[in-house]
Amino acid sequence: MPDQNARPGGTLFGAVFDRGGVATGDMAWLQALLDAEAGLARALERAGLAPAGAGEAVTRAAVAADFSAAEVAEVASASGLTGNPVPGLARVLARRVAGAAAAAVHQGATSQDIMDTAAMLLARRAIDVTRRDLLAASAAAARLASAHRDTLMIGRTLLQQAVPVTFGLVAAGWLAGLDAAVTGLDDVRASRLAVQFGGAAGTLASLGGGAGAGGREIPRVPALLAEELGLMAAPLPWHTERLRVIDVAVAMARVSAALGKIARDVTLLAQTEVGEVREGGGEAGGASGGPRRGGSSAMPNKSNPVASVAILGCTRQVPGLLATLVASAEQEHQRAAGAWHAEWQPFSDILRLAGSAASWGADLLGGLTVDSARMAANLTASGGLPLAEQVSVLLAGPLGRPRAHDLVASAAARAVSSGLPLRDVLLAVPEVEQAGVTADQLDAALDPAGYLGASAQFTDAALRAHEQGAFHG
Amino acid sequence: MPDQNARPGGTLFGAVFDRGGVATGDMAWLQALLDAEAGLARALERAGLAPAGAGEAVTRAAVAADFSAAEVAEVASASGLTGNPVPGLARVLARRVAGAAAAAVHQGATSQDIMDTAAMLLARRAIDVTRRDLLAASAAAARLASAHRDTLMIGRTLLQQAVPVTFGLVAAGWLAGLDAAVTGLDDVRASRLAVQFGGAAGTLASLGGGAGAGGREIPRVPALLAEELGLMAAPLPWHTERLRVIDVAVAMARVSAALGKIARDVTLLAQTEVGEVREGGGEAGGASGGPRRGGSSAMPNKSNPVASVAILGCTRQVPGLLATLVASAEQEHQRAAGAWHAEWQPFSDILRLAGSAASWGADLLGGLTVDSARMAANLTASGGLPLAEQVSVLLAGPLGRPRAHDLVASAAARAVSSGLPLRDVLLAVPEVEQAGVTADQLDAALDPAGYLGASAQFTDAALRAHEQGAFHG
Amino acid sequence: MPDQNARPGGTLFGAVFDRGGVATGDMAWLQALLDAEAGLARALERAGLAPAGAGEAVTRAAVAADFSAAEVAEVASASGLTGNPVPGLARVLARRVAGAAAAAVHQGATSQDIMDTAAMLLARRAIDVTRRDLLAASAAAARLASAHRDTLMIGRTLLQQAVPVTFGLVAAGWLAGLDAAVTGLDDVRASRLAVQFGGAAGTLASLGGGAGAGGREIPRVPALLAEELGLMAAPLPWHTERLRVIDVAVAMARVSAALGKIARDVTLLAQTEVGEVREGGGEAGGASGGPRRGGSSAMPNKSNPVASVAILGCTRQVPGLLATLVASAEQEHQRAAGAWHAEWQPFSDILRLAGSAASWGADLLGGLTVDSARMAANLTASGGLPLAEQVSVLLAGPLGRPRAHDLVASAAARAVSSGLPLRDVLLAVPEVEQAGVTADQLDAALDPAGYLGASAQFTDAALRAHEQGAFHG
Amino acid sequence: MPDQNARPGGTLFGAVFDRGGVATGDMAWLQALLDAEAGLARALERAGLAPAGAGEAVTRAAVAADFSAAEVAEVASASGLTGNPVPGLARVLARRVAGAAAAAVHQGATSQDIMDTAAMLLARRAIDVTRRDLLAASAAAARLASAHRDTLMIGRTLLQQAVPVTFGLVAAGWLAGLDAAVTGLDDVRASRLAVQFGGAAGTLASLGGGAGAGGREIPRVPALLAEELGLMAAPLPWHTERLRVIDVAVAMARVSAALGKIARDVTLLAQTEVGEVREGGGEAGGASGGPRRGGSSAMPNKSNPVASVAILGCTRQVPGLLATLVASAEQEHQRAAGAWHAEWQPFSDILRLAGSAASWGADLLGGLTVDSARMAANLTASGGLPLAEQVSVLLAGPLGRPRAHDLVASAAARAVSSGLPLRDVLLAVPEVEQAGVTADQLDAALDPAGYLGASAQFTDAALRAHEQGAFHG
Repeated sequence: MPDQNARPGGTLFGAVFDRGGVATGDMAWLQALLDAEAGLARALERAGLAPAGAGEAVTRAAVAADFSAAEVAEVASASGLTGNPVPGLARVLARRVAGAAAAAVHQGATSQDIMDTAAMLLARRAIDVTRRDLLAASAAAARLASAHRDTLMIGRTLLQQAVPVTFGLVAAGWLAGLDAAVTGLDDVRASRLAVQFGGAAGTLASLGGGAGAGGREIPRVPALLAEELGLMAAPLPWHTERLRVIDVAVAMARVSAALGKIARDVTLLAQTEVGEVREGGGEAGGASGGPRRGGSSAMPNKSNPVASVAILGCTRQVPGLLATLVASAEQEHQRAAGAWHAEWQPFSDILRLAGSAASWGADLLGGLTVDSARMAANLTASGGLPLAEQVSVLLAGPLGRPRAHDLVASAAARAVSSGLPLRDVLLAVPEVEQAGVTADQLDAALDPAGYLGASAQFTDAALRAHEQGAFHG
Repeated sequence: MPDQNARPGGTLFGAVFDRGGVATGDMAWLQALLDAEAGLARALERAGLAPAGAGEAVTRAAVAADFSAAEVAEVASASGLTGNPVPGLARVLARRVAGAAAAAVHQGATSQDIMDTAAMLLARRAIDVTRRDLLAASAAAARLASAHRDTLMIGRTLLQQAVPVTFGLVAAGWLAGLDAAVTGLDDVRASRLAVQFGGAAGTLASLGGGAGAGGREIPRVPALLAEELGLMAAPLPWHTERLRVIDVAVAMARVSAALGKIARDVTLLAQTEVGEVREGGGEAGGASGGPRRGGSSAMPNKSNPVASVAILGCTRQVPGLLATLVASAEQEHQRAAGAWHAEWQPFSDILRLAGSAASWGADLLGGLTVDSARMAANLTASGGLPLAEQVSVLLAGPLGRPRAHDLVASAAARAVSSGLPLRDVLLAVPEVEQAGVTADQLDAALDPAGYLGASAQFTDAALRAHEQGAFHG
Repeated sequence: MPDQNARPGGTLFGAVFDRGGVATGDMAWLQALLDAEAGLARALERAGLAPAGAGEAVTRAAVAADFSAAEVAEVASASGLTGNPVPGLARVLARRVAGAAAAAVHQGATSQDIMDTAAMLLARRAIDVTRRDLLAASAAAARLASAHRDTLMIGRTLLQQAVPVTFGLVAAGWLAGLDAAVTGLDDVRASRLAVQFGGAAGTLASLGGGAGAGGREIPRVPALLAEELGLMAAPLPWHTERLRVIDVAVAMARVSAALGKIARDVTLLAQTEVGEVREGGGEAGGASGGPRRGGSSAMPNKSNPVASVAILGCTRQVPGLLATLVASAEQEHQRAAGAWHAEWQPFSDILRLAGSAASWGADLLGGLTVDSARMAANLTASGGLPLAEQVSVLLAGPLGRPRAHDLVASAAARAVSSGLPLRDVLLAVPEVEQAGVTADQLDAALDPAGYLGASAQFTDAALRAHEQGAFHG
Repeated sequence: MPDQNARPGGTLFGAVFDRGGVATGDMAWLQALLDAEAGLARALERAGLAPAGAGEAVTRAAVAADFSAAEVAEVASASGLTGNPVPGLARVLARRVAGAAAAAVHQGATSQDIMDTAAMLLARRAIDVTRRDLLAASAAAARLASAHRDTLMIGRTLLQQAVPVTFGLVAAGWLAGLDAAVTGLDDVRASRLAVQFGGAAGTLASLGGGAGAGGREIPRVPALLAEELGLMAAPLPWHTERLRVIDVAVAMARVSAALGKIARDVTLLAQTEVGEVREGGGEAGGASGGPRRGGSSAMPNKSNPVASVAILGCTRQVPGLLATLVASAEQEHQRAAGAWHAEWQPFSDILRLAGSAASWGADLLGGLTVDSARMAANLTASGGLPLAEQVSVLLAGPLGRPRAHDLVASAAARAVSSGLPLRDVLLAVPEVEQAGVTADQLDAALDPAGYLGASAQFTDAALRAHEQGAFHG
């Protein structure tokens, strides 16, 4: 019988949930752990705590792709004895280094030092990849906002038609969310990605606590390690102070939240009965002659919004994972019994899912087709009702506000029940003619373009904020 | 550069989080999807809707282990076009079947029919494997409860020493939780694992809605499919009625909850300062001469409770995953846009994590070492204070309840501040002697064995409930 | 300055989130705590552990409505010293009882005994109230399923029009979810609502461990208490075995899940552009001349689906609360430090929110207006495309399946791009005429009523299952 | 029968979960809603869109404490018709204003404008109150870190004794978490608390879209409103872009996470068997002669860590609430159907619970008693084993590293099994004497004070970071 858990070369769900290049699979973790160990060896050498050449020797040996299957298996199986893969990894790595430099492998470190530092390296890459896709998505949203600054559509509240808006304003709202998500990634990358290095209980006594030359170097090693890896140094080890982990997860959850809103809107606007937008085929679309994305061989009427659905498939997994990470911050004493272990998978998953959502989001917004004719049709379908309020203002001049309001409200009710346009119903009311209100005036009041308030200004403000941000890489 | 997401043969964290044999990896999903497709072909043949031999032909071709890497990759990459792996799988499978029988592949089905049915097959296996490990765990808990029915220890509330209990009662509490968890698995397995088969919108019109012989068979097909796969048939398709998914997840979350409580207790009882229990080495322990589980080469004093920590590492991921699944029950119309997709990974994860926790739990309880001497020592360490209440009852006879209470309370306070045993402090109080209370009487009242209430009866009741249950396979 | 936290007589959000009569507010908790204390006094008297008349005396004093504001405040403020309201309550209650019977108040109990038992009393009432509303909702769903067994509408998948269904089938799916939710309530009520009574560490030594007559009665007291309160007795105290709490919460979360799906469907079907259903006004509707539910004075076109929105406002809070309760099952030793305390509010909230959702659900389904004309219009709006598959079967006779499929697929594509009905496009294809397919045959194949598969049978099956269940009170 | 949901003047659980002065109860919401309406009237007047004096008139009427019970009940009951309390509130407020100014009440606003703005006002107050308590807590942590910079204790990993640390380092870790939490509050307060004002669909067309003087003022109104309320203005309405809500919740969840870690440590360090810290009695302690906090009349040995337990009771509710808020960010179109409604209670709860935890935290850390004698005793209780690594370094000189390691490891194992101090076991090994290692040298190596690594430097770094921050108000 085949191993039921063995994974084939490509994962069955990877094209949906592991898209865009955030790397949190086993090989990515293995390399990140090795990068952390190699960085440590170089830092120790610079601090005079490891022999000359040790840094280079360990770095040379710390290449995951060079590991044999047997070596990987040895690391994996050792996890069962210690609860994490680092002790096995350190043993294999030391064997690969051999010679005097082998003693520099993992020197002074506890497993959590290496795991946490590796997690930060994975986070940095995930942030960079995700940021790139978010920038593509926000650039596309900005183009949509700009191009459709004056494209009229009906605004919808509680899933009911309400009053006119522009599609530019809708896209500007998406843009604002994406920009806020990028800002969050930038903040975390700039200030929260720190190395972990404290030894067994966060004192680094493990580096040799003596009063000699090396001893004085101890507190410098975390800073050197940070330099080697391009991460920050924290004032003190953060083994059980987990706000950094939460901050990375939150930044990715904000990405997810911004994209989930957009994807929800697109699925709704793309409904057959609404039809105001349509997803493009993505770069893997029909050009290649292969199956069309979102298509169905049996149902030619179907054009499923696959990118939006995939985004929602990703984003809806995120809140629960974030809750696990926040709950895991309650870690005991110097290093925790379980809460730390519970972080690894949700942390990896949240990076991967938010990153996939961003990749889908770039694709979605980059390829979105806007049907402004359908928008116009949907806007007028209810025969002027969304403009009732404005008509009421027009009539308030001659009739006074209360009478105008009542007259319009009852006309609107008749329009709904009869299916007639509000305009026709109003023109048939003698009082309207008596008040000297002309059909032209009525038409003007019933023009959605005259009831857009500050839509254009708001759209411009969002575009300006986008341009003034640092969102262009 | 190596593919950062490629997974080596064994996973780095699998020995912690994928232990015990619940199979939810890619190969397990692939086989379950194929089992669902094969069962469908057989059901269709039995209903006269597929040619004779089609069932066998498809079944023969539906072996995941026979798939080439290229075939798996084809399935995986097609996921990106449709949002799930089934359409690609159906295409590859039909190609492998060839001939007339190929038309029976996926006939009448929508992707969700196959995915949901496969999920139920994975759930059944997960339940069986987890149940086996839970039974081993509960048998061990029953042995501990029985063997230590009269082993005295201090009870602890809010992490403070309170009044005496027995370790048998503690183990009986663990047993009650495990038994309740097994019951939950049994209930779900017996009544909630149903096939899914409804076609595009749950009508099975896709099977050909005509009035011919085949047409009349349509509603029978789900029942035949259920027979083929050993699952239940539901009255109607449940594409967007997701309580079955929740019920499976809840049953596994209950397993997780019962084990998390036990693991937490063990980590606390195994603290260096408490030392009342110690984890065994597991089957992979020191006998083999290899590294000892929970050991540390640098710190010979360490014996980490690896099994308990691994359990907590698993169980603490479960609440967030369950929340995602419950939230995902809000599915639109006939088939959902995103909420269904968001289920697959948390569903797989919750099966795997609860199953791993159960496997660790069997190991933990089977190998637990109980140090009753240390229990006795901890019980008496505070010099009789946990028995203050009982002493108060003794003195209430001669002195009256209020005076007795005050006297004991102030003696207890003095015992705490002086470090003297409560007995010595009390005997030095003239009033005690005047009341005619003898040292022997005092010793009796200070005997923890006399202050166990119904501990033994409660322990027996839990053991009886365990034996009367159907927990022995 | 007024007390910022003081609550006025009615709560601002209660009409949305505290509807239907589930009682979990302060007064409900206070009375439930008093009921638990009173039941205990009666049980103790029956066991010979409290003086004759004590039960009645305590019961008479245990009426929350009789408490003065000062007494309530005393209870509340004592919570800050002990972390829960029971010690203060016991003191106030004993004072109210006075005399010899006062000693029976809280005798042998720990705070958690009273809190947990009170929680079970609150759960029982919540289940009863919620079940009543669910039964009203499911009766309405059954009526809809039955009345609309043959009402055609378009089925929708991924929010796109797919193939025909009936509204009866949709309502049958809702019904199945509601019935499953009722079953869950019934199961929990019948088997999981148990009293808690174990004293400080679950041994009941606190009742006096002596060998006298009373001593032998100790293990009987929990059973007597269960009798007094109409709850079950557990084999042993479950202070830190929390599956009962989870089971109640899960039963309510299942209610919430079933209702959330229905509410989501209604909001979507009630969209202005879809318009297939409309909410009724509820019992507080326009008849009274007051403001109409869901109406807007400014926008006469608006008819907001307030009941559905309120349901979603309730149900979406539930997954996170459930996660908290499942996570809280990890409770230390004999009584926990924090995890137990974290249960009270989410437990109360989940009862209240699921109960409110059920109340809204009864109202929603009882008043739902179905617009079958609009359903018919939406079904044909896309000019026959949902029937493309059936046309393909028709043409497969003369043309062979592959050719038929290609021909229909390309005709469908042309229909989409041209906006012509599929019928007209097909009739213009010479090959169709040459194949001898008549317009009548084509019309038959394009008739949605001929492509309903087992919709009616599935609907009937759900109705049968509903009738055979014990869902009628 | 009394109303089961009516709430007495003080809440039963408020002293635990509603401590410190964060106000999110009904009266606080009512006042915040009124503040938003009043601010709007003033802003409209400044923009020339409301008559002179309207701002003052509305402001005068907008005092929650002046509302009669009937008025509050009217607001509350109207919630059931519209799904939120604002329409009812606007009606009552306009009635209270009367005259021409009444027309300025709620002018141009949609309910969500007022609710979201009120939520931001509540958040601001919650942040201020919480920040004050966090500063008190961090000041206390800094004092502990400084006072105990050199107080030796055993470090613990996975709940096992590991190597020496100082209590100063432990407190410095707490301090770092608290400081990071304060920073998060400051960031959100400075940059994310914005007014909401967009009208029905976020265009402000409701303010009158004409081209006259007023028309040009429309986009200025949100900025004026922001000025009036001391909040920020956003570039465009954020009705369905919910990152601001998430950011407030996250800032409070970080507070909760930092405090949960501290409370967990205190409960563990305060265990009877560890006894290294003890909670003080809080300001409501025994001085008043009333019941002692954490005390038990029956068990004089108990001193429950009530503050820590209360903190955990608060903090453990937070992750699930945060998950609900993050999930709620998926809001449809211009204003959402349910997701927005689902925010109000978890948003209020997360403010309240994090605020209560901070209040308890200030109390906990301000009153914490440190027992350095017990710390010293626990450190030496295992007879030098935590120093085995350092002894090994000493012996490596004469014996070589491998031989030294083996010798110490076997000595340590003997020490564990015999219960003898490691020192005595080592001195009995002939090889040690032969190597010329003296008892004095051994004693030095076994001195925990010599194995503290960078503990002092790390502590100093955390204190320096604290002092350099802006944490002193």
